[in-house]
Amino acid sequence: MTNFKVGIIGAGPSGLAMLRAFESEQKKGNPIPEIKCYEKQDNWGGMWNFTWRTGVGKYGEPLHGSMYKYLWSNGPKECLEFADYTFTEHFGQTISSYPPREVLFDYIQGRINQSNARDYIQFNTVARWVDYIEDKKQFRVIFDNLKKNETFEEFFDYLVVGTGHFSTPNLPYFKGIENFPGAVMHAHDFRGADQFKDQRLLLIGSSYSAEDIGVQCYKHGSKSVTIAYRTSPIGCNWPDGIKEKAKLSHFEDSIAYFEDGSQEEFDAVILCTGYQHKFPFLPDNMRLKTNNCLYPDDLFKGVIFNHNERLIFLGMQDQYYTFNMFDTQAWFARDYMLGKIPLPPKKERIKEIKKWMDDEALTKTGEDHVDFQTNYIKDLMSYTNYPNFNVDKVGSMFKNWLKDKENNILNYRDQIYTSVIDGTQAETHHTAWMDELDDSLENYLEENKEPAI
Amino acid sequence: MTNFKVGIIGAGPSGLAMLRAFESEQKKGNPIPEIKCYEKQDNWGGMWNFTWRTGVGKYGEPLHGSMYKYLWSNGPKECLEFADYTFTEHFGQTISSYPPREVLFDYIQGRINQSNARDYIQFNTVARWVDYIEDKKQFRVIFDNLKKNETFEEFFDYLVVGTGHFSTPNLPYFKGIENFPGAVMHAHDFRGADQFKDQRLLLIGSSYSAEDIGVQCYKHGSKSVTIAYRTSPIGCNWPDGIKEKAKLSHFEDSIAYFEDGSQEEFDAVILCTGYQHKFPFLPDNMRLKTNNCLYPDDLFKGVIFNHNERLIFLGMQDQYYTFNMFDTQAWFARDYMLGKIPLPPKKERIKEIKKWMDDEALTKTGEDHVDFQTNYIKDLMSYTNYPNFNVDKVGSMFKNWLKDKENNILNYRDQIYTSVIDGTQAETHHTAWMDELDDSLENYLEENKEPAI
Repeated sequence: MTNFKVGIIGAGPSGLAMLRAFESEQKKGNPIPEIKCYEKQDNWGGMWNFTWRTGVGKYGEPLHGSMYKYLWSNGPKECLEFADYTFTEHFGQTISSYPPREVLFDYIQGRINQSNARDYIQFNTVARWVDYIEDKKQFRVIFDNLKKNETFEEFFDYLVVGTGHFSTPNLPYFKGIENFPGAVMHAHDFRGADQFKDQRLLLIGSSYSAEDIGVQCYKHGSKSVTIAYRTSPIGCNWPDGIKEKAKLSHFEDSIAYFEDGSQEEFDAVILCTGYQHKFPFLPDNMRLKTNNCLYPDDLFKGVIFNHNERLIFLGMQDQYYTFNMFDTQAWFARDYMLGKIPLPPKKERIKEIKKWMDDEALTKTGEDHVDFQTNYIKDLMSYTNYPNFNVDKVGSMFKNWLKDKENNILNYRDQIYTSVIDGTQAETHHTAWMDELDDSLENYLEENKEPAI
Repeated sequence: MTNFKVGIIGAGPSGLAMLRAFESEQKKGNPIPEIKCYEKQDNWGGMWNFTWRTGVGKYGEPLHGSMYKYLWSNGPKECLEFADYTFTEHFGQTISSYPPREVLFDYIQGRINQSNARDYIQFNTVARWVDYIEDKKQFRVIFDNLKKNETFEEFFDYLVVGTGHFSTPNLPYFKGIENFPGAVMHAHDFRGADQFKDQRLLLIGSSYSAEDIGVQCYKHGSKSVTIAYRTSPIGCNWPDGIKEKAKLSHFEDSIAYFEDGSQEEFDAVILCTGYQHKFPFLPDNMRLKTNNCLYPDDLFKGVIFNHNERLIFLGMQDQYYTFNMFDTQAWFARDYMLGKIPLPPKKERIKEIKKWMDDEALTKTGEDHVDFQTNYIKDLMSYTNYPNFNVDKVGSMFKNWLKDKENNILNYRDQIYTSVIDGTQAETHHTAWMDELDDSLENYLEENKEPAI
């Protein structure tokens, strides 16, 4: 064992990637540090660990999960496949390219279940407060064992923050919303389309939440879905029953008024207005302060906090790449902590961060964003032994996916892709997505069912 | 000024009572300590500061507020009147005994607006973490300025915790609830009856939330209201349209199964399953650990934490008396901090706490509970100069109120009482409560309207 200690906050895809990275090093017979991982929820998987609760959890902590029933992957699984653990290896059968939540959760767990990673994790435990002790170069972290209602402190040489950034709603005020009579909620608290059946639904926002919740509610029987964008429309070819409208102005009771002068009555409002990067347990000088973007400021290689070299953030970027990006970040962070990757002087780091940020500022289209993150992943991979995979080809798949969605937002999930890891071509799911109302793993994996098409 | 410093966490009725207590002392020309008060919300009033939001607030903190539209006082205002600021003094007219939320909020603000109390309060600021520094006998408190995203520390000789205990939902799991298709929420996130119009509503619980949300939803047009009790029924004379059922067993989709073997389909579920005493900012050895009761353990005189004499909790009891109880507690706490009330040795304090707890254990009926809290208030008042009022008479009013509710849960709010402070007899509201759908202050105070009866 090396002579330092690492604390990991969060056992979602990022925290688990960090554990997996160290485990992989250990399996090679190399020393790894002492590791402890703390997870607020009672299970791992982060966002993928579905909860029926809303607002706060069993112990009164703000809920992590934003997942809902009928959530199917909104990108091809071939774009997020682990380079060291394929879908085929996990399921022992070929599956479609867009699995539902439960299936993806099963896949994430499959990899980490191969190891003793669970032993490193203390569940139902939230980080309350972090102090950095300058002279010892250590973090003192106060944790709260929610189940026992007990607080305790631990000291770490490195602190890895993998708490995600799709949990804390950004909830702007709209004039009159306090008098809207129907349900008003943030996408974070949306748990399924059923409650909105036969209702006229207003979604505010134009990113993934609005797009996906809108389509799911349309599919599951809402009377109408109206998406009010804030800056620019999503711009899909919407079917009858879903439409986009200009910016919302205000509400008067159940009537929404739009900036184009139109008005419309609604039964429910879902605010798909994004999330905040929120780190209540960190002093402000250790907080990553950023909006949702591809290259947040102050993170060298998107990972190492520039104002405290021993503080590491994983997964804080807006994401095309997801599980595999967390992996490449975790592998980089591991080798950095192990001293295999030297840290350039701060001045140079600032310069490099700025270069990436300037590059992001030049991106305009979805394709540009994909290229940007493809380059980022490739750069990270050049430093470590994370299993090589054809990142450019994944980039191409992302671009196809963007086109698929533009062509038909209702059936893009029926498309299939081919794994760049093991060459497996996905299978068409037995039921067309628009006709598939059952999102259970059991139904999904039912092998003998004939494809509906 | 005295040579010590007091930190108050929370500017709700308890925190404001503390400020008022010191202000009253200062007005008499006596020295008071340096005081700072911190409030998570952007305004004072605690629970009475209504918000349309649910789950977390603007800055991602767990929401304090559990109030909803159409909330009218569920007890006579004469039972909660401040002894030093009457309703008549505030409104300049007589009003009914059961005002709506906005009116009570106005009243609370009226008293504190007479002083410069607002200057002591820093809003949008949450307490993150408290350390007690034994050798200095001081609290180091880390605060988080939510608006600025900045953390800072302050030191105090006394810490007064007035953060309430009706904010953190107790949310038990019921088998199958994760597959219930309709809305599922805790009473904490209920914001009004309108969204449940024409719906078949299941409420789980048998305390004030279930009783009041049930009646409000009945009044505002829910198709049916079913209250499933957990331990014992509320036992009112329910009108057709509201019923109580035995304990819930489990759900299968939209069907609820009860322990008496019956089953019923519902459109929505509201968990009226109570709240947790939650103090995430305190180390466990400074946390009050209690259920919702009239005399929590470890609080001498219901106020001074027995394991740290410099830590004070206000308003942590289950409540019949409310605003006037916070006042009597705050006056006691003030005089204790000012050295006017000596603290008996710990052993004696334990003995006294046990005596009260034993007495509470002997209470059986609502009337017993009222008597218990009446005695508690009288005991507190015997130590301070809080303006004397006829507490026994208030106790009698509480007992009448219990009977009124038992007789007719739908019209008990049409009853009127007489102030023990200034002898004002309440006026009958211009509209019978069941016919009054407008809960605004403006409508409530409309003087020229003829009483409906």
